[in-house]
Amino acid sequence: MSDKQITDFYRNALGIKTNEKEIYLRAVTHKSYNNSTNNERLEFLGDAVLDLIVSQQLFVKNKDASEGFLSIEKSKYVSRENLNRVAERILNKNVIKHKSSYLSKNMLGNTLESIIGAIYIDKGMQACEKFILKHILQFKTEGFLLKNLSRIINKIFYDKKTKVNRRS
Amino acid sequence: MSDKQITDFYRNALGIKTNEKEIYLRAVTHKSYNNSTNNERLEFLGDAVLDLIVSQQLFVKNKDASEGFLSIEKSKYVSRENLNRVAERILNKNVIKHKSSYLSKNMLGNTLESIIGAIYIDKGMQACEKFILKHILQFKTEGFLLKNLSRIINKIFYDKKTKVNRRS
Repeated sequence: MSDKQITDFYRNALGIKTNEKEIYLRAVTHKSYNNSTNNERLEFLGDAVLDLIVSQQLFVKNKDASEGFLSIEKSKYVSRENLNRVAERILNKNVIKHKSSYLSKNMLGNTLESIIGAIYIDKGMQACEKFILKHILQFKTEGFLLKNLSRIINKIFYDKKTKVNRRS
Repeated sequence: MSDKQITDFYRNALGIKTNEKEIYLRAVTHKSYNNSTNNERLEFLGDAVLDLIVSQQLFVKNKDASEGFLSIEKSKYVSRENLNRVAERILNKNVIKHKSSYLSKNMLGNTLESIIGAIYIDKGMQACEKFILKHILQFKTEGFLLKNLSRIINKIFYDKKTKVNRRS
C-alpha cells in the first residue's frame, strides 16, 4: 500500500483522521521493514495506554466487583490472543509495512497496540478511549465516552460508598 | 492512627492535600480490616496509572532507546520489589488500617499503588505524575512536569524523526 492508501485506511476503516501522518505510518512499520524507525516504541506506549483505559472502564462499569474479578476481565481484553483477534478483524494485512516472509498474528496484534500509541501521541487519552471502546471493549459507548474521567469515576465511587454506608 | 492523623500524614509526609478524604482513607485500608470496603480496587486502578506514567516518562526521557531497553527500565520501577522498597521509605506503617498479625512488605507496596489510584480519582493524571516523579521515578522533575504530555511527547518524537531523516 502507498502511504496515501494507508492514511485512507486509517480514516475510512478505523475512523481516525490522521493529523500527524508520520506517527501513523510508523505505527504500521514492522522492524523487518526498518530496523531503526519502526513501531516498537509506539507499541510499548500503546500497551500501557490500553491497560489503563481498559482498567478504568472496568472499574467504572463494575462498581461492586472485586479486584480479582476486574483482573480476570481485564486479561480477556488485553491478552495477546484477544488483541490478535481484534487486529485480524479490523486491520488490513496489506496496511502493515514489513519484509518478513510471513505476517504472523502477533505482528497484527502488536500493530494494533502501536496504533493506540500513535493515537495517544497525536490526539491524547480521550481519542484512545473512543477507539478502544469501539474496537476492543465494545461496550455500549454512550455514557462511557467520558469528558472528565476522574469526575465521573469519582461520582460512581461515591455512589457506591454511599450505598455501602446506608447498608451498614 | 486516627483518620485525622492519616490525612495529616498524607499532607505532611506525602505532600497530598486530600480533597476527598474518604478515598484516601480507603487507600490505606487493607482487606483484613474491612473485607468489603478496602483498597483492592484502588490498587487495581493505581497499578495501571503507574504503568502508563512510568512508560510515558521513559518514552520521553529515552528518545533513542529501543522497546527492549524501555521495558527493562520500566520493570525496575514498577516491580513488586521496588514498590515495596519505596513504600517502606515513604509510608508510615501505622498509617495502614489492618487486622493482620503482621504487616508484610507487599501490604506496604500494594498500599502505595492504592494511594496512586486514590490520587488519580481525586486529582487526575497530572497529580499522579507529580507524585510518581517525586517518589518513584525520582528524575529531575523540571521539564518533565508536563502540562500537556502528548504535545511534548509529540515534539520529542518529531525531533527524533527529523534527526533520523537527516541521517538518511
